[in-house]
Amino acid sequence: MKKKLLAIIFILLVAFVRAENGYDLWLRYPPIKNKMLLASYRLALQQISIQGNSATMQVVKQELVKASQSMLGQTPSFTTSTINYSSLVIGKMGASLTAGPLLKNDIKDTGEEGYSIITSIANGKSQIIITGNTDVSLLYGVFHLLRLMQTQKDIHKIHIISTPKLKLRLLDHWDNLNRTVERGYAGSSIWDWHKLPGYIDQRYIDYARANASIGINGTVLNNVNANATILTAPYLVKVKALADVFRPYGIKVYLTARFSSPIEIGGLKTADPLNEEVRLWWKLKAKEIYAIIPDFGGFLVKANSEGQPGPQEYKRTHADGANMLADAVAPYNGIVIWRAFVYAAHNPIDRHKQAYEDFVPLDGQFKNNVMVQVKNGAIDFMPCEPSHPLFGAMTKTPLMMEFQITQEYTGQSTSLVYLAPLYKEVLNSDTYSKGNGSTVAKVIDGSLYNHTLNGMAGVANIGSDINWCGHPFAQANWYAFGRLCWDYTQASDTLADEWLRMTFSNEEKFIGTTKNMMLASRETMVNYMNPLGLHHIMGTGHHYGPAPWINDQSRPEWNPVYYHKADSTGIGFDRTATGSNAIAQYFPAAQKQWNEVGSCAEIYLLWFHHVPWGYTMKSGRTLWDELCYKYYKGAADVKKMQQDWDAMESFIDKERFLQVRQLLSIQYEEAVWWRNACLLYFKTFSKMPIPAQYAQPDKTLDYYKGLHFPFAPGNN
Amino acid sequence: MKKKLLAIIFILLVAFVRAENGYDLWLRYPPIKNKMLLASYRLALQQISIQGNSATMQVVKQELVKASQSMLGQTPSFTTSTINYSSLVIGKMGASLTAGPLLKNDIKDTGEEGYSIITSIANGKSQIIITGNTDVSLLYGVFHLLRLMQTQKDIHKIHIISTPKLKLRLLDHWDNLNRTVERGYAGSSIWDWHKLPGYIDQRYIDYARANASIGINGTVLNNVNANATILTAPYLVKVKALADVFRPYGIKVYLTARFSSPIEIGGLKTADPLNEEVRLWWKLKAKEIYAIIPDFGGFLVKANSEGQPGPQEYKRTHADGANMLADAVAPYNGIVIWRAFVYAAHNPIDRHKQAYEDFVPLDGQFKNNVMVQVKNGAIDFMPCEPSHPLFGAMTKTPLMMEFQITQEYTGQSTSLVYLAPLYKEVLNSDTYSKGNGSTVAKVIDGSLYNHTLNGMAGVANIGSDINWCGHPFAQANWYAFGRLCWDYTQASDTLADEWLRMTFSNEEKFIGTTKNMMLASRETMVNYMNPLGLHHIMGTGHHYGPAPWINDQSRPEWNPVYYHKADSTGIGFDRTATGSNAIAQYFPAAQKQWNEVGSCAEIYLLWFHHVPWGYTMKSGRTLWDELCYKYYKGAADVKKMQQDWDAMESFIDKERFLQVRQLLSIQYEEAVWWRNACLLYFKTFSKMPIPAQYAQPDKTLDYYKGLHFPFAPGNN
Repeated sequence: MKKKLLAIIFILLVAFVRAENGYDLWLRYPPIKNKMLLASYRLALQQISIQGNSATMQVVKQELVKASQSMLGQTPSFTTSTINYSSLVIGKMGASLTAGPLLKNDIKDTGEEGYSIITSIANGKSQIIITGNTDVSLLYGVFHLLRLMQTQKDIHKIHIISTPKLKLRLLDHWDNLNRTVERGYAGSSIWDWHKLPGYIDQRYIDYARANASIGINGTVLNNVNANATILTAPYLVKVKALADVFRPYGIKVYLTARFSSPIEIGGLKTADPLNEEVRLWWKLKAKEIYAIIPDFGGFLVKANSEGQPGPQEYKRTHADGANMLADAVAPYNGIVIWRAFVYAAHNPIDRHKQAYEDFVPLDGQFKNNVMVQVKNGAIDFMPCEPSHPLFGAMTKTPLMMEFQITQEYTGQSTSLVYLAPLYKEVLNSDTYSKGNGSTVAKVIDGSLYNHTLNGMAGVANIGSDINWCGHPFAQANWYAFGRLCWDYTQASDTLADEWLRMTFSNEEKFIGTTKNMMLASRETMVNYMNPLGLHHIMGTGHHYGPAPWINDQSRPEWNPVYYHKADSTGIGFDRTATGSNAIAQYFPAAQKQWNEVGSCAEIYLLWFHHVPWGYTMKSGRTLWDELCYKYYKGAADVKKMQQDWDAMESFIDKERFLQVRQLLSIQYEEAVWWRNACLLYFKTFSKMPIPAQYAQPDKTLDYYKGLHFPFAPGNN
Repeated sequence: MKKKLLAIIFILLVAFVRAENGYDLWLRYPPIKNKMLLASYRLALQQISIQGNSATMQVVKQELVKASQSMLGQTPSFTTSTINYSSLVIGKMGASLTAGPLLKNDIKDTGEEGYSIITSIANGKSQIIITGNTDVSLLYGVFHLLRLMQTQKDIHKIHIISTPKLKLRLLDHWDNLNRTVERGYAGSSIWDWHKLPGYIDQRYIDYARANASIGINGTVLNNVNANATILTAPYLVKVKALADVFRPYGIKVYLTARFSSPIEIGGLKTADPLNEEVRLWWKLKAKEIYAIIPDFGGFLVKANSEGQPGPQEYKRTHADGANMLADAVAPYNGIVIWRAFVYAAHNPIDRHKQAYEDFVPLDGQFKNNVMVQVKNGAIDFMPCEPSHPLFGAMTKTPLMMEFQITQEYTGQSTSLVYLAPLYKEVLNSDTYSKGNGSTVAKVIDGSLYNHTLNGMAGVANIGSDINWCGHPFAQANWYAFGRLCWDYTQASDTLADEWLRMTFSNEEKFIGTTKNMMLASRETMVNYMNPLGLHHIMGTGHHYGPAPWINDQSRPEWNPVYYHKADSTGIGFDRTATGSNAIAQYFPAAQKQWNEVGSCAEIYLLWFHHVPWGYTMKSGRTLWDELCYKYYKGAADVKKMQQDWDAMESFIDKERFLQVRQLLSIQYEEAVWWRNACLLYFKTFSKMPIPAQYAQPDKTLDYYKGLHFPFAPGNN
């Protein structure tokens, strides 16, 4: 009775003093209120047998203590003995853990990171066993078990075997050394280079915890628009300090390599990848790095793109450049990730086609520790974009997926847009490269063309804001990205469910409403920003807000007018044979989906076709009316989100409730702005009215054209 | 018994789940553990009678609830009736509060911000009454009462009357619109302009709470190196949103005005302050601002200094410029704060003298809503600097003090340096302008020359770091500055004591040790950076670390060699009649203190004199040996701080303990760096050895000269 009372008091008090500022992400570990569950979880975490004493196992222990104290009001007792009555046993198979043939079979194929969690009976009492082949696999298993508790699952009978589908699960930080973040919308960089290596910010540790909890195992610390200073000795000591923090969490550090570093910090006159001095410089640099960071992951390189230096300056190929770096890191099992996001100045062909034309001819020429990293689509992380034609087209080269978690084109930090549906759409799309079912996922997981190296990278949305991501719901994109890296077959719905429960509440009413908000949010955003295949019509530079009218940029493919091609006859980019023929880069079966106006999925209609304003859509509406319909629906659906959220007030803390409410209000304003600005502008070509049933724009096109955002964030 | 048990459990649990990340500053409200005090405070906050329902009174109520729940585990009950058994009565005198003649007399002279707190007996029970003449005065009184509890003072018998000695108590934020902070060492600007006005960050509210708790009543939101964009309509709406947040806390918003704004955002061809169009533009701009922010404080201006535009471009005086703006804001009771920190390019005279020469002739020409803001010293916020000769020299103009809270020259964010002793040293220094006792404090509080306008400004050290100020102890400088604005007669010791108790712990052992660390820290920093009156010998641009050797800057007064003038004969800047004669700007009695080498206080020796290396100091050591002694003592005293802090581990939370430990370790490295670099460099002139009893530098002068910090923070 007394014990029960204390538990209840505990729960109330913890709930009361908890500061819900978002810093704790999905690792809040709020008290379990359901008595049955609480009892069951308390029992499960009462006595824990832990095998091993590595830094990783220390982390395992700390996390269990933290979670148990916070969720259950109980401090577990730990033992190293396995032959006992421990309620939870955590250990690598073989060493000291004894287990039946079932368990041995379970972890046979779990590799270096997979794990098994089973319940069994020991001495008449229920026991949970977490096992795997490495310490880090055990950490992953523990986070899985904790997730079951955070989401209030029954743990009486579990039999889980989980192995990551992808080997490299990376975050790419576009963080500059001056702490600005390119396309960052959550304050400044969390890397406080000035105070490193002497000062280890608690954030570094919590960053590692959060990433380990979702399976991220690598981080590229700095911007692909690179600065060579990161490779100088004073900075490598700082990088080492971070690597040391991350290592116990199974996270390797990578750096971007500025191709001209041998000139800028090496004192050489050239960066020609076939020059012996240059090659030696990189070899010595790699040696220097690995001497202090033995498990350094490798280099990420953006070369000959948007002003970055590269091998083409010396009339060498991307393969020459990548292979030189690959040779430098090969002795240490390092890898080189070479970005395919290239488009040359003054190249008159459709930008859509350029990466393919540059890279397909190089297939087979890359060393075996090189991966080519491809953005999900051929243009640039658009709200809705067909998958990149390179997927399936380079069979001899392991391709790494590059997604954007940071919402450069998808609402930045003011919009609730859950990106898992976008990720899934791309991963599930069929390249038809080896017949039906040759999905992008199978290309990048290495299964289609037998590549050992495989992985996904997400451009991080993390910054110095207290809640890490600016928008409370932006945390869901970090979460979902990591979980999809581990297993891309998981449903958007499942991941939203998990994240909501851990981040906010397990109340079913709350989950029901907010999950629907999340799942619909991406389509809503597409509707009010880029419906029917429109793309790249945002403001120049900062990419904030609509600016389809821009046509004064020095390079044609920087201008929105290049992409929508609206004129008196219609709107859209003809990428079929009668136009740029970019569609020819896709496999025939894929082409077939989009080649005809009549059969092309309408979400890609204006991506591939220039369509007359009066064209009849599937809805029966004209194209113009459909455009109006989509734009108005998008904005109206944001209004609906606002109403739904307002009804959630009683379920969660006041602080985050108000944050989201304010942000949804901004999002609605922005949706109306996109809608009105785009329709008023396109109307000058269609010469058709916005149908009378809609509230007409209350501002003029000139008003929208006159808006300027000199200090919009993320534009470095 | 049961109640008691609950209270104890509560305290333990709150302590346990509290995240000590520094965000809560000195408003942590940790649970009171002392049973007697707890009982007494619980009684005092049991039933609270609150008069009035303004936004400020809502804030009063919220703060009392928060503090009471957190410190006492008790939610107060509130009433509006005064004739009752309330333990605490809060109300303005007169309206509904009845009180004896004593109380009436108490608040007679407390003005708009002062308050009285007394204990009396009502209906046989003890009652605390907080009263004043405005709602904000009541808020100040409540924070005072809460401070008594936080510092665990006996509240059985209190009789406090407190009135601010200064009218304007401002923070100057050198924050840019792109969120970089000039001379900021705690991340980026807390003002998220992009998301304003729609998104009110919780930080804005907590910023206001923290400032109100120490009496700050104004904030200049943006950098004195100003951008006119802040004065455009879209930004004024954002400024209004902040002003609305701050208003209930008694904080007015001010902006810096870029002098050339009429050209840059007004479309005019000139910014000549005597041009009628220009004058009209500012009048309309003021009208526009006051229409949406009726209590807008006014403008702060840096003109004709370091590249900023100003009236001198039009052959007008600073008075012409200031008066034009003063006329614009006068109808709304706004003020203009005009900075005296000017030094012209290509002016060959000692920079020390320039502000005086520019401004003294203008005394009497400024409108009565103009204040001239003067840095504490004539050079630039040096670690140790005589007070500015302008204090006392402009009798007809109200002078505003400008201190730096941000530690530009005093260790930035890696050093524990408590600045209250510096502030006090300046405020207590005697100008002798009206005879003995004409202290700087009396100049700036208006009492010496009968000015109604008076105040102090501190350049803020606040940024987006979770703990606001980067270094946990840097919070103490924000705190002490505010408290000294309220009452500059308070001792550094008292304020350190208060701050430590509220921020860390009331344990006497902890207080004893750490207070001594704080009180000695500024002298320690002076010793290892700028002993004996050395100044401005830091790195160029970022001002990080020592660089006394720099002599290649385009303007002479930007070079450290200009300031130390070391040569084969000696070191120091002769500012007496045989040199620049800057000393003549001081009043004769002040001059007398410093004019002779033999009698000049040694902390200012090299400030005013060029002294031979072999000169015999008061210690009996030669100047060179004394220099070595001071530098070595400074570094050794940091080592001592490290040892003292290590002994504090058991008294406070692990997170902040480790933060400070790491930072002290960095500070020690930096102290050794300063010591070695400076001594190795000055040794090339003195040709004397570093005495053998000291550990000799293990690096060469060239090593130190070769250090570069391309991304040192705060250098915008």
